[in-house]
Amino acid sequence: MAKVLISRSEDYAQWYNDLVIKADLAENSAVRGCMVIKPYGYAIWENMQSELDRMFKQTGHSNAYFPLFIPKSFFSKEAQHVEGFAKECAVVTHYRLKNDPDGKGVVVDPEAKLEEELIIRPTSETIIWNTYKNWIQSYRDLPLLINQWANVVRWELRTRLFLRTTEFLWQEGHTAHATRDEAVEETLKIVDLYARFAEEFMGVPVIRGTKTENERFAGAIDTYAIEVLVQDGKALQCGTSHFLGQNFARAFDVKFLDKTGKLDLVWATSWGVSTRLIGALIMAHSDDKGLVLPPKLAPVQVVIVPIYKGSEQLEDLGSTAEKIKSELEKKDISVKYDDRDTYKPGWKFAEYELKGVPVRIAIGPRDLENGTIEVARRDTLEKMTIRQEDATGHIVKLLDDIQKNIYNKAYRFREENTRQADDYNTFKEIINTKGGFVLAHWDGTTETELKIKEETKATIRCLPFGQPEENGSCILTGKPSRRRVLFAKAY
Amino acid sequence: MAKVLISRSEDYAQWYNDLVIKADLAENSAVRGCMVIKPYGYAIWENMQSELDRMFKQTGHSNAYFPLFIPKSFFSKEAQHVEGFAKECAVVTHYRLKNDPDGKGVVVDPEAKLEEELIIRPTSETIIWNTYKNWIQSYRDLPLLINQWANVVRWELRTRLFLRTTEFLWQEGHTAHATRDEAVEETLKIVDLYARFAEEFMGVPVIRGTKTENERFAGAIDTYAIEVLVQDGKALQCGTSHFLGQNFARAFDVKFLDKTGKLDLVWATSWGVSTRLIGALIMAHSDDKGLVLPPKLAPVQVVIVPIYKGSEQLEDLGSTAEKIKSELEKKDISVKYDDRDTYKPGWKFAEYELKGVPVRIAIGPRDLENGTIEVARRDTLEKMTIRQEDATGHIVKLLDDIQKNIYNKAYRFREENTRQADDYNTFKEIINTKGGFVLAHWDGTTETELKIKEETKATIRCLPFGQPEENGSCILTGKPSRRRVLFAKAY
Repeated sequence: MAKVLISRSEDYAQWYNDLVIKADLAENSAVRGCMVIKPYGYAIWENMQSELDRMFKQTGHSNAYFPLFIPKSFFSKEAQHVEGFAKECAVVTHYRLKNDPDGKGVVVDPEAKLEEELIIRPTSETIIWNTYKNWIQSYRDLPLLINQWANVVRWELRTRLFLRTTEFLWQEGHTAHATRDEAVEETLKIVDLYARFAEEFMGVPVIRGTKTENERFAGAIDTYAIEVLVQDGKALQCGTSHFLGQNFARAFDVKFLDKTGKLDLVWATSWGVSTRLIGALIMAHSDDKGLVLPPKLAPVQVVIVPIYKGSEQLEDLGSTAEKIKSELEKKDISVKYDDRDTYKPGWKFAEYELKGVPVRIAIGPRDLENGTIEVARRDTLEKMTIRQEDATGHIVKLLDDIQKNIYNKAYRFREENTRQADDYNTFKEIINTKGGFVLAHWDGTTETELKIKEETKATIRCLPFGQPEENGSCILTGKPSRRRVLFAKAY
Repeated sequence: MAKVLISRSEDYAQWYNDLVIKADLAENSAVRGCMVIKPYGYAIWENMQSELDRMFKQTGHSNAYFPLFIPKSFFSKEAQHVEGFAKECAVVTHYRLKNDPDGKGVVVDPEAKLEEELIIRPTSETIIWNTYKNWIQSYRDLPLLINQWANVVRWELRTRLFLRTTEFLWQEGHTAHATRDEAVEETLKIVDLYARFAEEFMGVPVIRGTKTENERFAGAIDTYAIEVLVQDGKALQCGTSHFLGQNFARAFDVKFLDKTGKLDLVWATSWGVSTRLIGALIMAHSDDKGLVLPPKLAPVQVVIVPIYKGSEQLEDLGSTAEKIKSELEKKDISVKYDDRDTYKPGWKFAEYELKGVPVRIAIGPRDLENGTIEVARRDTLEKMTIRQEDATGHIVKLLDDIQKNIYNKAYRFREENTRQADDYNTFKEIINTKGGFVLAHWDGTTETELKIKEETKATIRCLPFGQPEENGSCILTGKPSRRRVLFAKAY
């Protein structure tokens, strides 16, 4: 069997790209920077959506849908927001094509020019707060806890499947509150929700923290994020939650009457995760043989491959396989029985390793005689033979073990690759030779932050929550600092 | 209590629009022709999606996601498709804004003009078949059964909430097959799936049939549809399924090697339903007091309203209400206990009638003494008092009764409003004075079809499946006809 993937150590970027394509997750489309999410990749997204949606609803949020188009003028209403966002985006200027008068094909009808251009939403704060203006009159209308599942477009110069694409899928929460405290609480509650999702379902440990002013969302008072360390030692921001203060309420004139009859501006939050999570999932766990998927998000949790000669043997194996399958399905485990005669078992083994199916069962004629099956786990590639009657109990436990094991492995990796640096030379050496997270002191200024970025390509990922106080001095300027912040090179 | 809605008999169009807005389903946005789907309306869409998605997966389909943007040149590749579709659509010409050099705000950066314009998908056959080209090489890659949940844009001149909007949400299935028969079978299987969904879940009886050549999808060999008759006697097309032959395979050069090693063009289908279904649901069942929702799709199936004076009474009622609620939830019934002290019971009663909650439970101090509750059903507005211990059993049965009753009512309405006409004068009289469906003979030509449309505004909705053979003559031309076809004025 030929090697399907280049190894991570040889070329991590190439490994990632090849893996996404060869595992049938996604591919580049005919439109620059836009991807096609293939059924296997989309099934992972559906599993993510389903769990996140359940978590949002449990915490009182409802879904709604706002227009894809945003009038150009809306972007100018919040001054910082326009600086950060309104530039690289898709602009609709016309609403009709016509037959080309000079020949074949179609051309844009110059008569059908829009009075005001429409922007494809890069994020929806502006159109949503323009709508909230009519939904909110009094404290009885608050809090308003709304989420939207949608596609958004940001005209990125350099794209990479799942991690950064021109169009991507995401959810964006937009909430409105009567008080500052309540809005801050919501913002933090969501960071926590994202972190729980990443850790419990994706099996990916995260650092929760506050973004620096320089890395803050355009229009936010504070941005919180979860940061993941992936296998090449780079950081990947996986979800953000923004406390927007009264900035959007002010820009769109959204006021409410409080219980005492006083008119006040509404407090806002927004927050989102996207198909980038799939990129994080791949980068965190997969190996040189292919994907390693956490059982809780794997589209297929168990695959059964029959090993046989001739259709008679296949029939015998089939009834045993179907019995195992139906027992597992009673435990809500998703099982695929792959009895295709167009591919050989060895090909199938490699295929399911590539696709990261957590558990593979092989069953041959000798197993039938002995009442056994061979069970292989994808994370460690270990195999063992067990009795058929123990299959369900064994596999329920095994899936749980795998889920825990890949989390623990990623956690150990992060621990081993999180270092402290107390001077700039050490800092640079770690960043250049080892990568990973570096905890170091910083003087709190954007100037210093940008200089370090310019010289080392490392950025401040966040000011981690709960980082202990300690007296130190900035690695660049030597100025005093009370807490270490988290640096890394990042995607 | 003031009347909230104009009556259907007074102004049906106004009644519909007011109902959509006052029941908090949707509203017009700041962007012409685009709607905001509010949480209550979106929850209905989520329930529809969830059931349809289950049905698609049960029949072997997988979800995937293709780009929002389609290169302009793609539309010219299938000659009929471009005629039917490529004209009224949103065109992206630029990818960047910049600060207005003459003042405040932003302007489109003329330097950032796309080489080829991008069209916001009005439907995705072209980009999907351009992708399938790389996915299909041999018979082993077929059938390819893919569905996409997405937003699409068609620049409609006249829009109406849910029924026709510039942007709408839908699902579009796109399947590829090795043989003509298999593709035709898929097309028909989906019509059947849509019909079952409409009848079993929406409680809406449908007519399944074939579209005339004139009403066919641009690029299809045959279009099948489900047609619904709504309360003002007009028809509403609720879902279509297209047999596309080899037209798109030819346009995008999608060929496969069959089992004998022969290269052949692939056979295609496409099919979709959209947020228009919500419009059909509203128009089919609702009354002058508001929405009437089928229990199987209602976001809230049962609401409990306490009738009390003072917080002590409320507390007593609360524990009983919560007990009933939790018993119902064990049966997977969604229940809301509305103990808000900011609204009076009478206001709440009217509100839940307006919002079409199928069952309302009222509970007051006397009920506590007697061990009773008052149960009101939304469809017939009947009330009865039952014993608290019978609540769960009674309500499970009642929800089932309501689901059946609203279907039966809609069915009877359609039966009473489906008529035969054997001559043109009778036909015109029915169409002009009574509306509804008219079964009449037609000579099979587009010319006659268009003339009848021009003179009466009635169109051929479909050639119903299973319509019995009978000798007749075309109502307009007197030419021979073997089967009646279904006419109506339509949305």
